[in-house]
Amino acid sequence: MDYGRPVLKRTYDEQRCSVARTLEVVGERWTFLIVRDALLGTTRFDGFLSNLDVSRNTLTVRLKYLVEKGVLERTPYQSRPVRFEYRLTTKGRELAPVIVALMDWGDRYAAVETGPPRVAEHIGCDGSVHAELRCTDCDRQLRPGEVRVRLAQGDVHLGA
Amino acid sequence: MDYGRPVLKRTYDEQRCSVARTLEVVGERWTFLIVRDALLGTTRFDGFLSNLDVSRNTLTVRLKYLVEKGVLERTPYQSRPVRFEYRLTTKGRELAPVIVALMDWGDRYAAVETGPPRVAEHIGCDGSVHAELRCTDCDRQLRPGEVRVRLAQGDVHLGA
Repeated sequence: MDYGRPVLKRTYDEQRCSVARTLEVVGERWTFLIVRDALLGTTRFDGFLSNLDVSRNTLTVRLKYLVEKGVLERTPYQSRPVRFEYRLTTKGRELAPVIVALMDWGDRYAAVETGPPRVAEHIGCDGSVHAELRCTDCDRQLRPGEVRVRLAQGDVHLGA
Repeated sequence: MDYGRPVLKRTYDEQRCSVARTLEVVGERWTFLIVRDALLGTTRFDGFLSNLDVSRNTLTVRLKYLVEKGVLERTPYQSRPVRFEYRLTTKGRELAPVIVALMDWGDRYAAVETGPPRVAEHIGCDGSVHAELRCTDCDRQLRPGEVRVRLAQGDVHLGA
């Protein structure tokens, strides 16, 4: 028994892993849903508040953190009293594949009875949009079993 | 001030949204990292424990929940004493695009100083693998601004 182990580590910071590092920024409860709503066009505190049914305190803390991390930027949209809106930076918008991948999986495996509540479409073409694993060389869409992750220490297959 | 609002809602269950429903299954702290490790080949309790530096209690609860939700399956690999291993189901393996999308974003925006710690490759072809937004009709890779999400209530653009 290792009594030196902390009871519950609160951060993933020490993990040399890009998944863990990403979760350090957007992994907190509600944060993915704030990013989802920002991608869907919500910009104001009260908008996030009514979409999310989260406490004002939690929302304030999460928005502040996302601004600090460069995912959202906060700019005034009126003075007297001054009010701010929150918009995704480029860094924040680039989370869209994560959100669409979460949506795809939920549509398939955690769907509501009435079917997918939202459909992602290509503007202009109207085709359905999904987050796919793609090979940049042969341009094929890949199944998890066709992907290998190379570590500094060696190779492993995804979903072998 | 709405005093009827709960101080901190603990679930996303009521959200009619596939992102929220997915997070209900895999959004808890550590859960994405358990799925990541399972995709990378970890199967045993002690393996997850040493990769994650999480408490035994938390890991036990998370693994049990993922088995209940059909993301992992638990099967005995020895008797006397009986010991179990945890493997991803098809449903669990299909989270690979989420994990790769998190990895891609982290490589780009939350990287460690020494560069990406892992590289995803196409087995056989050796090309790099990424999670991309793709149109199923015209087969183009899309930027967030080229994607519209259609709600029951109307249309919005991603990252407008």
